[in-house]
Amino acid sequence: MTRAALLACDWGTTNLRTWTLDAGGAVLASRDFELGVSRLQPGEAAARFQSEVRPALDALALPAVLCGMIGSNLGWTVAPYLDCPASVDDLARGLVSPPSAEGWVRIAPGVRGEGLAGASDVMRGEETQLFGWLALNPDRRQGRHIVCHPGTHAKWMVVEDGRLIHFVTAMTGELFAVLRQHSILKSDAAPDDPVAFAEGLAAAGDGGALAARLFTARARVVGRGKSAETTPSYLSGLLIGAETASVPPLLGVGPRTQVAVLGDAGLCALYSEALQHQGLACEIFDGEAAAVAGLSALFRKATGQ
Amino acid sequence: MTRAALLACDWGTTNLRTWTLDAGGAVLASRDFELGVSRLQPGEAAARFQSEVRPALDALALPAVLCGMIGSNLGWTVAPYLDCPASVDDLARGLVSPPSAEGWVRIAPGVRGEGLAGASDVMRGEETQLFGWLALNPDRRQGRHIVCHPGTHAKWMVVEDGRLIHFVTAMTGELFAVLRQHSILKSDAAPDDPVAFAEGLAAAGDGGALAARLFTARARVVGRGKSAETTPSYLSGLLIGAETASVPPLLGVGPRTQVAVLGDAGLCALYSEALQHQGLACEIFDGEAAAVAGLSALFRKATGQ
Repeated sequence: MTRAALLACDWGTTNLRTWTLDAGGAVLASRDFELGVSRLQPGEAAARFQSEVRPALDALALPAVLCGMIGSNLGWTVAPYLDCPASVDDLARGLVSPPSAEGWVRIAPGVRGEGLAGASDVMRGEETQLFGWLALNPDRRQGRHIVCHPGTHAKWMVVEDGRLIHFVTAMTGELFAVLRQHSILKSDAAPDDPVAFAEGLAAAGDGGALAARLFTARARVVGRGKSAETTPSYLSGLLIGAETASVPPLLGVGPRTQVAVLGDAGLCALYSEALQHQGLACEIFDGEAAAVAGLSALFRKATGQ
Repeated sequence: MTRAALLACDWGTTNLRTWTLDAGGAVLASRDFELGVSRLQPGEAAARFQSEVRPALDALALPAVLCGMIGSNLGWTVAPYLDCPASVDDLARGLVSPPSAEGWVRIAPGVRGEGLAGASDVMRGEETQLFGWLALNPDRRQGRHIVCHPGTHAKWMVVEDGRLIHFVTAMTGELFAVLRQHSILKSDAAPDDPVAFAEGLAAAGDGGALAARLFTARARVVGRGKSAETTPSYLSGLLIGAETASVPPLLGVGPRTQVAVLGDAGLCALYSEALQHQGLACEIFDGEAAAVAGLSALFRKATGQ
């Protein structure tokens, strides 16, 4: 049996995802815990990691590398943001050893960049996936690349010669969730209607006047007799369509740029359809593999392996 | 004592607003009831109007004209939408006599227009305020005018020679409410900080890439150390700014067009600041007076007075 060498954790707001890796970075086992940072009481991260997570994984003594919101003021300890431009070496140098940890534990810093409108922009977790993606795709370590990580807070990242130089966050997933649950557009129906999704993509136009375009999701039901069951799919198409129409131009993405879409397979497929609707080429990459590769790379760099 | 001649009601989703008017349309008394359409059980509108509203107003036998969501399938009875273009005479001809009414009761129809992206757009209640505004401002009955009615679902209406020819709805107020209550931007603080509001207006830019601009409300706190207490004001400025930047161009509004802002005084003042930020001239009008004048005009036309 291959010996476990690292406990890799992506500890986000909602969930804690863990992978036990061998010395070569291959996954021996993986498990998710419903123990996101939003469910932690202040100060209890260390104890719950030691008393719940490690025993459940039979990983009491393994070195552990953690990324995500666990490094925020809501998590275990604050791993201060690195400023753009940031490389994987910068990230490894910024690893923080949290208080009250048993054994070797390190938390990855987030990254801060210059955002829209003079606000800064921030991420925690996606940077580790990005550097894992670069580790898995050596041909992307030179030149300029655009990486889109869809999700609650979608990240659009610009990489140049292996460094994250700029990024923009779009609250598309969160808008979808709050509108679907709490607004006049609320519906329990699954967003699984491809025709209504495509209708939403078309209605997104150039992504401008979004508050007005959103009302078309209501008006098409009340005024045109479309089924309210199709509203979530239409809303999904409208929001992803508006994002893919309006964010790439902010990053200087033209019709010849290929976008790397990195993340959950189902969500990546929706973004791929939306990007193609915009005439943009894209390629899909697995976010989980990238997270594992990124955490593994940080461990190797931190331990000089 | 002047004799009451009409019970005028704007019966919306959240509240029922009532005014007792004399024969000349002057307000003798007014009262609001927390009896919006969303709080009615199916089929009980007639009984509650007769047993609660009329007695409380000492208006058992008064003729009544109602507008708003009470004419929807969630209200008393459906008053079918009129299609644009629509005049006050069309609206009067479309009044519906609801079932089980005691005495003379009429419900105003809503209006349906061609919306964005091939969806239709709909309104119920704002049309009555619009025609009341025209009744109070005879100089606007000729020519082309743009009227903005801010609110949960803001309406931007194009009037030509006294007829409502086109309109666009923006869900700005609802976006503000759901984001403030249910998203990562949630806050109990009052949206009363003029500096943060102006900062939000500036961050709205041309109103495009809204999902990305919204994240600046988070990033300015986490990444730039701004007080989270100012988030609601910033969010209000960002959303109203995005609307006033992006919707007027859809209606062909240029820098020389004056926008009439019709509604609640506090909200109208925020829209006025936002429109001025866009370089657009505007004038504020009282929405309540317009509602009263509109309901009164419908009564006169329906009864041949």
